[in-house]
Amino acid sequence: MSEENLKSMADLVAHSKHRGFIFQSSEIYGGLGSCWDMGPLGVELKNNIKQSWWKAMTYRDDVDGVDAAILMHPTVWKASGHVDNFTDPLVDCKVCKSRFRADNIDLSAPCSNCGAKDSFTEPRNFNLMFSTQMGPVEDTSAKVYLRPETAQGIFVNFPNVQTTMRRKLPFGIAQIGKAFRNEITPGNFIFRTREFEQMEMQYFIKPGTQAEAMEMWKELRWNWHLENGLRKERLQWKKHEQLAHYADAAFDIEYQFAHGWGEMEGIHSRTDFDLKQHQEYSKKNLNYVDQLDGNKKYLPYVLETSVGCDRCMLAVMSDAYRTEFPGDAEKERVVMRFKPSLAPIKAAIMPLMKKPDLEGPATALLRELQKDFKCEYDTAGSIGKRYRRQDEIGTPACITVDFDTLTDHSVTVRDRDTMVQERVALDKVKSYIKEKFSL
Amino acid sequence: MSEENLKSMADLVAHSKHRGFIFQSSEIYGGLGSCWDMGPLGVELKNNIKQSWWKAMTYRDDVDGVDAAILMHPTVWKASGHVDNFTDPLVDCKVCKSRFRADNIDLSAPCSNCGAKDSFTEPRNFNLMFSTQMGPVEDTSAKVYLRPETAQGIFVNFPNVQTTMRRKLPFGIAQIGKAFRNEITPGNFIFRTREFEQMEMQYFIKPGTQAEAMEMWKELRWNWHLENGLRKERLQWKKHEQLAHYADAAFDIEYQFAHGWGEMEGIHSRTDFDLKQHQEYSKKNLNYVDQLDGNKKYLPYVLETSVGCDRCMLAVMSDAYRTEFPGDAEKERVVMRFKPSLAPIKAAIMPLMKKPDLEGPATALLRELQKDFKCEYDTAGSIGKRYRRQDEIGTPACITVDFDTLTDHSVTVRDRDTMVQERVALDKVKSYIKEKFSL
Ligand SMILES: [Zn+2]
Ligand SMILES: [Zn+2]
Repeated sequence: MSEENLKSMADLVAHSKHRGFIFQSSEIYGGLGSCWDMGPLGVELKNNIKQSWWKAMTYRDDVDGVDAAILMHPTVWKASGHVDNFTDPLVDCKVCKSRFRADNIDLSAPCSNCGAKDSFTEPRNFNLMFSTQMGPVEDTSAKVYLRPETAQGIFVNFPNVQTTMRRKLPFGIAQIGKAFRNEITPGNFIFRTREFEQMEMQYFIKPGTQAEAMEMWKELRWNWHLENGLRKERLQWKKHEQLAHYADAAFDIEYQFAHGWGEMEGIHSRTDFDLKQHQEYSKKNLNYVDQLDGNKKYLPYVLETSVGCDRCMLAVMSDAYRTEFPGDAEKERVVMRFKPSLAPIKAAIMPLMKKPDLEGPATALLRELQKDFKCEYDTAGSIGKRYRRQDEIGTPACITVDFDTLTDHSVTVRDRDTMVQERVALDKVKSYIKEKFSL
Repeated sequence: MSEENLKSMADLVAHSKHRGFIFQSSEIYGGLGSCWDMGPLGVELKNNIKQSWWKAMTYRDDVDGVDAAILMHPTVWKASGHVDNFTDPLVDCKVCKSRFRADNIDLSAPCSNCGAKDSFTEPRNFNLMFSTQMGPVEDTSAKVYLRPETAQGIFVNFPNVQTTMRRKLPFGIAQIGKAFRNEITPGNFIFRTREFEQMEMQYFIKPGTQAEAMEMWKELRWNWHLENGLRKERLQWKKHEQLAHYADAAFDIEYQFAHGWGEMEGIHSRTDFDLKQHQEYSKKNLNYVDQLDGNKKYLPYVLETSVGCDRCMLAVMSDAYRTEFPGDAEKERVVMRFKPSLAPIKAAIMPLMKKPDLEGPATALLRELQKDFKCEYDTAGSIGKRYRRQDEIGTPACITVDFDTLTDHSVTVRDRDTMVQERVALDKVKSYIKEKFSL
């Protein structure tokens, strides 16, 4: 990791806190290992990203949404393989008691913490699922898990969705939701956390058609990231050369984060592995009856697209965050160049001065815009200073109400990116910013 | 509970499953105690309710949103009192091993299960929080809890939000999120579940102003439920006569569910109890400096509004669900009379027949409407049958493309509630339904 990259991740973390995007969870208690809270601007940005994904993925003919519970029947995780295989191998140093992931260190080397030689224990497997007890008293209750992925909530609902929505292959089921993994080494801000959010879609297809489904979804998903404003040169494909046991092809979309290239989305051909497992463990017949192919019965194959919502948010923030005109005492500014539809605040309404003459029309405009958008009302400091503050949180439009407004019934709308100001009639402001910024 | 009420709850559960609103969680494994999954229509309805709440509560001058993690520092729950006091007293029958809530039964009576006398154990307290272990290995990891309420995620973020958003009292912090309670007796469909979603707002005020804040929020919150279409006669206020230790006034909005009147929202004056506790346990100074009152330092009081999101959804569904023209062989129909902005599907596009001439313009219209709305495309069965199916899921607009469309470039738009059909030009359909249904 280069010095420059380290600095820019630290900058982003500080900026995120300072401007109300992301706070450390339970910060007044010293925080909780790698958990983060979305602040007032972070929750808006994240909701906008989720909304963008939901519309792109489910406002289609062939995809339904679901929202499955986090707590699922424990046999689900037996069937999926997580109870037996979702583990990391750990070793301890017998001298200093430090703990390491066995696959991350050279076991024949001295302990990197205390320097002791031959001090490691045998590796033992540690399951990454969080478990808890459901039911009134521990000795009679059931051990259940916090789901480590949202995908299984889709697989177990396949028969219900297919039947109630009268679906024929190919069709998809999409879901946004929290998942939990007891990571040994979380880190890099919101890149790897123990509580995180996924945006997943499983596309159920006829076996043999996985190559064309893969091509279709690779293109759609790549374009979605570009449409969110990510720079093409910071995106790349990574083809998995070693495949997971359930996959017959797998590609990742990686983003160039400050800490290096990292997976943001996986597009994986999962075959019928999961449905087959659930059929075996649930003893329910999960076959699809293909009316277009002589009522043939078979388990569909699955093409999965899985985005880390927090990683996607980190990419959007990293990409948007920049210092412009550095070193220019007049013009230097920090700006978040979010795509306007993703920006947390769409417009800031600024009466030039705190006078009733100006605050009257400014408040009326605010009320009108608030019917559709999250807005800010800012009266503190010079207009230039207020522009800078809105630039720092990525507000596309700053709207100034001045003394001319009282006679020409117009306001000045200043564009975050071009910094160009235009005079717009009060009763046209809403349609103007809706159109200009595609809101 | 009357026979009729029982029947209508059972009807709603069956209808919810049959039409893709709500499925039992992990149903192919026999379900998991009182957990439910949102199906394709349920997730849209629930998201629409959340969006309605979010806009009403945060598209304001004085409220910011947050989204705190489900896993919080364990001391949070010590400070809040949940570790010590969030318990139910349980007793066992020593003869048949049945378990009861001690406060729900007459302990001097025979066991209602086996009839044994004097068979109950002493009551013991059972904490309703789910706990789990965070960190790599059980013996060194921290015991953490799944939050039993979202409110504490707001209290611990009070200093960060107040500072970064430069807030002066009064101001609120709003949040939507999952919470978990290991209920002894969950039930009544999605009314009482172990995993549920809350929509909460804490309004931070100057001590002494809690009465006016209570009046303001009581009115706003009551009206919000009415605006969502709930019938006034099924809503009532309940004043708490016995107050929780942290409250100085408390009102609930109750809804008349099929199983009886039940709490849907609580509006509680919580004083400075929570901030005081967190100040003591975190040893951080959480005082607010009142610049408008001689820089006086004090802990704000809190007025809380807390809606059960799932209960709200259950109320919306119960209220909308009805059989019309019962017994009339021609006209009888089941209809979900959702407020159109809450309806899962906004429009169903129906080519009269499956012919390319009709499917061409029908698909083009579908593509145009899908840019803004979740739509269905339905070609199966007679138009009358298709209307009935859309009525059953509450779709406000059914749009038929027929042979006249090819010459008059218009379509028939049928209104769910009035069943009146209007002829509308193809290029006006979108603005027509947007305006007619306030979408
Ligand atoms: Zn060591
Ligand atoms: Zn008994």
